Amino acid sequence: MGNSLPDNPSSGNVVPNKDLVGHKLLILSDIDLPDGYRERLHSKFPGLQVVHSRFNPWKDATASIPDVSDEDWATVTVLLTGPRLPTIEEAPKMQLVQLQSAGANYVLEKPLFVDTKIPFCTANGVAGPPIAEWVICTYLAYQHRIPHYLNNMRDGNWERTPGAMTTSDVVAQRVGILGYGSIGRQVARVATAMGMEVYAYTNRPRPTPESRRDHSYHPPGLGDPEGALPTRWFSGTTAPALGEFLGSGLDLLVVAVPLTPETRGMLGAPQFQILAAKRTYVSNIGRGPTIVTDDLVAALDAGLIRGAALDVTDPEPLPRDHPLWTRKNVIITPHVSGHSDSYYTRLLAILDINLEKLSEGKGEFINQVSRKRGY
Amino acid sequence: MGNSLPDNPSSGNVVPNKDLVGHKLLILSDIDLPDGYRERLHSKFPGLQVVHSRFNPWKDATASIPDVSDEDWATVTVLLTGPRLPTIEEAPKMQLVQLQSAGANYVLEKPLFVDTKIPFCTANGVAGPPIAEWVICTYLAYQHRIPHYLNNMRDGNWERTPGAMTTSDVVAQRVGILGYGSIGRQVARVATAMGMEVYAYTNRPRPTPESRRDHSYHPPGLGDPEGALPTRWFSGTTAPALGEFLGSGLDLLVVAVPLTPETRGMLGAPQFQILAAKRTYVSNIGRGPTIVTDDLVAALDAGLIRGAALDVTDPEPLPRDHPLWTRKNVIITPHVSGHSDSYYTRLLAILDINLEKLSEGKGEFINQVSRKRGY
Repeated sequence: MGNSLPDNPSSGNVVPNKDLVGHKLLILSDIDLPDGYRERLHSKFPGLQVVHSRFNPWKDATASIPDVSDEDWATVTVLLTGPRLPTIEEAPKMQLVQLQSAGANYVLEKPLFVDTKIPFCTANGVAGPPIAEWVICTYLAYQHRIPHYLNNMRDGNWERTPGAMTTSDVVAQRVGILGYGSIGRQVARVATAMGMEVYAYTNRPRPTPESRRDHSYHPPGLGDPEGALPTRWFSGTTAPALGEFLGSGLDLLVVAVPLTPETRGMLGAPQFQILAAKRTYVSNIGRGPTIVTDDLVAALDAGLIRGAALDVTDPEPLPRDHPLWTRKNVIITPHVSGHSDSYYTRLLAILDINLEKLSEGKGEFINQVSRKRGY
Repeated sequence: MGNSLPDNPSSGNVVPNKDLVGHKLLILSDIDLPDGYRERLHSKFPGLQVVHSRFNPWKDATASIPDVSDEDWATVTVLLTGPRLPTIEEAPKMQLVQLQSAGANYVLEKPLFVDTKIPFCTANGVAGPPIAEWVICTYLAYQHRIPHYLNNMRDGNWERTPGAMTTSDVVAQRVGILGYGSIGRQVARVATAMGMEVYAYTNRPRPTPESRRDHSYHPPGLGDPEGALPTRWFSGTTAPALGEFLGSGLDLLVVAVPLTPETRGMLGAPQFQILAAKRTYVSNIGRGPTIVTDDLVAALDAGLIRGAALDVTDPEPLPRDHPLWTRKNVIITPHVSGHSDSYYTRLLAILDINLEKLSEGKGEFINQVSRKRGY
């Protein structure tokens, strides 16, 4: 075939190759490459050939991929894609798959993932900033009564709410972050700058500096890669462990865990009873089913919590007549908090880092999916 | 009279007095003192007598002040007040006046201010956090289309806006802060944590680290007391100087200057023409008349700017039929951004600092009003 590279890493072969000589990057994406992107790649890796097929890899599995020949597949070493993957036989030279999404659930049963050791990497971290902004924005909007004043604008009503002097700024308030990944860490950074105290909760304990570190991608200067911001760190996988965290005097709870069998329904009536002590405001930007919706509605109605900001709900779409829409002190958006026109730029920044790592030949990549954990 | 202290500082007498022996603090405020406040003061300054009159010093000048005798006035050395002031003769021992407001305009013609050298100090800095939160919140709300989604909630409409993928997070955006005081500096802190670049504009140039420092009060750990966050610093008092700043590629302009003859009407049609190059979003939390309202309406209608967040307007109250209410991409609140239930706590923190300084006898105070500048 068209290059002299060894077969994919299932053969265990890893060698440095500074210029990426003999490598071929195939990009499956219907989005334009940024101006100057090819030129920058070429000056960094003169040996790397780049093929861009304007194909959306989320299209159904039988859709044909334009501008990619069998010869391309036979020689591609790096693939930027989504669910659409070649077979092992089609792409014998594959050395790295860079996914375009933060999750990898859709590859977990594909032969190219299951039956090889090819590193698969995710886009984890690219949505940290927009989602953190959404969390900060909606919480401040609640605290500063912005929905109330937007409503007054409709009538040209400049009136000051009686009791507006009781608005609370967030200085010295406490935010608890359930799931301290790239989103939670950026929330922590902004919250700290506003004078809030940060508590973190993770399933595994993080007793050492190394254990608190986050090795996944974060935009330069953002997040909390060292895990230095929380003043307390809770952990566990049991209801009592979670209860200790929820009962630690939180003004704001940010739900940022992935949906797994363990996190499904993790916040229900017993947990809202614990949050009632401080009437914690709840912000969910993880997945809807982490919260038992009926229990959330009941908690809002009973005033156990001050309010809720929900970018995700269970179900989605939220039906027109669902009771959540009309609860007081609720902000709902249709699962959009992660949208950002910087998504693709950050994704390519991750790909750049991984091409660099490939050229170093150390076999280490950023955002690499663990075949044991599945994420 | 009841103490042996010298007369007020017009006599030039300044001596250390660690326990504040012979001093009397008179608090004019209809707000309760926080629990334990008197005890904390007493343990710190055992010699200090504290008198609290539940009197609102913004009441008209002839209202009688309960629970304060002529003897109290004759021996008071420190006064926490607003516009209500004694005459020089009534309070011959006065050594420090702590005002409860960030502005001091209402004392500038009072004999106790004009004809003595008694230090007057303001509450400057106490509203930095809530106002900065308002700025961040309203800008993020615009960027993330929160008013749009709040509107959709009325109809139980979960629909995703076509083009929602083009939402821009604020990473690498640039905020220009016109007037880099306690509010602007806290905006800078949060904006920096979100990954924004900060440009500052002040009337005086700030070429040295010392000149960039802000000596006024800021809650511990907040703001930018060293002036370290801006990556560029503009200054001047002329239209060309201002124009250079406005034309520096700002995504967001925060207007945080006090209202003076120089700042009145400072942002009008010519300035909006400059902002048009980048379609800068404008946030005004200073005073309404700094912006020429008709020119703002025209700039919004012509799309010269992306939108505006206005906690202050000209006029106030904004009349029911005013065109600003119905402009697109505008958020208006009725001059409430500085409201916070932490106001009084922070005010007392400033008073504490100034009592400490009084006890040190160095004649230096925080937030002291310059008799030359008048603020």
